[in-house]
Amino acid sequence: MTNIRTGMGYDVHQLVEGRDLFLGGVKIDHAKGLLGHSDADVLIHAICDALLGAANMRDIGYHFPDTSDDTLGMDSKVILKQVVALIATKGYQLVNIDATVCAERPKLNPHIPAMQACLANVMGCDADQVSIKATTTEKLGFTGRQEGISAYAVCLVEKVR
Amino acid sequence: MTNIRTGMGYDVHQLVEGRDLFLGGVKIDHAKGLLGHSDADVLIHAICDALLGAANMRDIGYHFPDTSDDTLGMDSKVILKQVVALIATKGYQLVNIDATVCAERPKLNPHIPAMQACLANVMGCDADQVSIKATTTEKLGFTGRQEGISAYAVCLVEKVR
Amino acid sequence: MTNIRTGMGYDVHQLVEGRDLFLGGVKIDHAKGLLGHSDADVLIHAICDALLGAANMRDIGYHFPDTSDDTLGMDSKVILKQVVALIATKGYQLVNIDATVCAERPKLNPHIPAMQACLANVMGCDADQVSIKATTTEKLGFTGRQEGISAYAVCLVEKVR
Repeated sequence: MTNIRTGMGYDVHQLVEGRDLFLGGVKIDHAKGLLGHSDADVLIHAICDALLGAANMRDIGYHFPDTSDDTLGMDSKVILKQVVALIATKGYQLVNIDATVCAERPKLNPHIPAMQACLANVMGCDADQVSIKATTTEKLGFTGRQEGISAYAVCLVEKVR
Repeated sequence: MTNIRTGMGYDVHQLVEGRDLFLGGVKIDHAKGLLGHSDADVLIHAICDALLGAANMRDIGYHFPDTSDDTLGMDSKVILKQVVALIATKGYQLVNIDATVCAERPKLNPHIPAMQACLANVMGCDADQVSIKATTTEKLGFTGRQEGISAYAVCLVEKVR
Repeated sequence: MTNIRTGMGYDVHQLVEGRDLFLGGVKIDHAKGLLGHSDADVLIHAICDALLGAANMRDIGYHFPDTSDDTLGMDSKVILKQVVALIATKGYQLVNIDATVCAERPKLNPHIPAMQACLANVMGCDADQVSIKATTTEKLGFTGRQEGISAYAVCLVEKVR
C-alpha cells in the first residue's frame, strides 16, 4: 500500500469585539477578533486537525483541551509546531496543505502571502507546500452575517520512516 | 498516472426527540437522535460518500434512496459494508479515511475509540486507517444551535487490480 | 517526496429569481438561479479552487476578480479551462476530482451524468476522473432554506514535469 495519507480539518470561531484577529499566524487589523480559549486562530486550528487526522492521532481538542490553563491565550503557532512534531513521532511528514478561510470581512487576499510565509516557517517546510485561499459565503450563514469565521483544510502526509 | 484517488463526503441530519443517536455505528446516550429514513448515522453517510466519490460511483442517495422501503430504518453499518464491496468491484481499496463530526452536544471525544473500532471492523481494515475527529461550531449555525449534526470525511483509495 | 498533491474548494452563491441556474456547466430548469458576477456556477468555482489550491496558485477570486468587467457574466466553463491551463504551467495534471453540491432543490441526481460529461470535456480528461455528488442539508442552514447553494470539491493532482 502507498505511504501517503490524507486528512481534513474544519474549525469555527465567533467574531466578537475586544479581541485581536489572528489568521494563519498573522495579526490582521479588524474591528473584531475571534473568541476562543487560545488566540482562536481558526485557520491554524483547521490545519492542525488535518495533520492530526492524516496521521490518525485524534484531534486538536484532544491534545489541547480548551479547559486547560496551559492553553489559555496560547499562540496557535505553538500548537501547530507541536502538531508537526507529534505526527513526526509516528513517521509522518507534510506533503502539502490546502486551506480555505470563509469570512465576509475583512478582505483576506492581501494577507495571504504573509500567512503562507508564517505557516511554512512554523512548520519548517517550503512555502510551496502551504496553500491558503479565502472566500466569502455571499452574506449567507453565520460567516455571511459576520458572526464568525470558519476554515477548511485538507492535507497529504507521507510516512518517511 | 498514480493509482491513488481522493474522495470527500458531507452529510447533515436533524436532531429530534424520540430517536436514538447513532454515530460511527455506535449508539450514544443523548436526549435527542438524528432524523432520517435509515438510522441517520451522519458520520457513516459522509464516509460512504467519500468512498463512492473516490471510486467515481455516484453517491449514497443514488445507491440507497430514501424513498425505498429497503432502506427504511436501515443500519448504516450495512450500507457502509455494501459501499466497501461496491468500490472493490471497480478494484478500489481503502488507504485511509479522516472525518470530523460537528456537534455542539453531546461530547463525542469519549466515544471516538469505539466508533473507530466499529468502523474498521465493518470495513475490514485496520483501525489506524480510520480517523474520527469531533468539533463544536461554537454555538454558530444549525449545528451550534443543536438543530442538527453534520459530518465531513475525506479519503484516499488505491486501485489494487 | 511524492509528486502527488491534494486541494480543496468551497463556494457559495445565493439563489435568486430572474437568473438561470448553471451547475457543472449545465443549465438546469428551476424557478431560481444563482446570483454572481459570472454565471455563478458554484460547482465549477469549487472545482477551480481545489485545482488552484493543489497547485498552490492562489484562488479563483485572485485570478478572476468579481470586480472586473472581463469576468462579468462570464461562462464558468471558460474559467475552468483557464485554471487547468494555469496549473499545467506549473507542471500539474489532474488525477481526480470529487465534489458534492448541497441544494435542497432542485433534485440534481438526474443531471449529474451531463455535468460529469461537460466538465470532463472542458478539462480535457476522462469522465472517470470527475465525480459529482449531491445532497440536501435536510432543510437546515441556508442551503436547507433554499437561500443558496454550496459546493465542496477535493482533488488530487500529479506533477508530470
